[in-house]
Amino acid sequence: MSLTHAVLALVAERRGYGYELAHRFEERVGPAWRLNPSAVYTALDQLERGGLVSGAARRGGTRRSPRVVYAASPAGVAALDAWLSAPAARPEPVRSELHLRLAFAQRRHRPAVTAQLAAHAQACEELLARYPRSSARGGAALVDAAVEGRVRAELAWLAQARARIAAGG
Amino acid sequence: MSLTHAVLALVAERRGYGYELAHRFEERVGPAWRLNPSAVYTALDQLERGGLVSGAARRGGTRRSPRVVYAASPAGVAALDAWLSAPAARPEPVRSELHLRLAFAQRRHRPAVTAQLAAHAQACEELLARYPRSSARGGAALVDAAVEGRVRAELAWLAQARARIAAGG
Repeated sequence: MSLTHAVLALVAERRGYGYELAHRFEERVGPAWRLNPSAVYTALDQLERGGLVSGAARRGGTRRSPRVVYAASPAGVAALDAWLSAPAARPEPVRSELHLRLAFAQRRHRPAVTAQLAAHAQACEELLARYPRSSARGGAALVDAAVEGRVRAELAWLAQARARIAAGG
Repeated sequence: MSLTHAVLALVAERRGYGYELAHRFEERVGPAWRLNPSAVYTALDQLERGGLVSGAARRGGTRRSPRVVYAASPAGVAALDAWLSAPAARPEPVRSELHLRLAFAQRRHRPAVTAQLAAHAQACEELLARYPRSSARGGAALVDAAVEGRVRAELAWLAQARARIAAGG
């Protein structure tokens, strides 16, 4: 999974420990990813087992759980270059719970589904309010633009869908 | 997972067997979902264990693997109504391998990432060529509109990203 590569990239840029790496990931990729911080620890374990990063306990943390600072190995840097140079997988499928509900709702579910579309639009507006992030530069700014474009398209579609349902379509 | 509910909805509309239900799912929801047909069989097993559908072997299929036709139970119809009436989960996170690559690419990876953006645009164009589906009505047409809107937004963003990278941004 590519999150592992992203964590490797962060460590290759500058050594760091789990919590800090999760913070740097979120800063770089933005809130729409909704990072589960525990996935960063899983990625670090996996990278360490593969010899792509090495961890060394440092001061900080607690006695039972000392802070471990990770650095990329030469094999890790090579793996990072291989990831970024390899052809990308084809685009992700478009899968949404809301799409399924719309596809399978019958007439009697219409009021409930209309309320769900409204709640979804509200959530999109809330996400959009967090963009663009003034701190985003370079690749991070490109990611922000992708998220903004997608969420605006979703809002336009939601408005259209609600109008069509209200018209009895 | 909501695919299970979608399969329940299909069976409630009209009884059917695995392969046929997978076909009807794809017809309804469209190619962008990229259904894994085996997920339909998993869903049917799960629904049957939960008493929401019941299967009966019918003619057809092979002797070792007779065709099983599924029908929704009254509890299944109630579960379907509950799914379609419950508040929807919040929108899915926006997660893309390509976003990660853009966020973490360094200058030396730029030619490779530019090629990946081009390949991604090509894949989006190919998907878009399958829309709108003239067979889609009602909720299925709304799903198509969502997919089209998202893919068009992705293409607009890809053009912008490629221009920005070409300009050395």
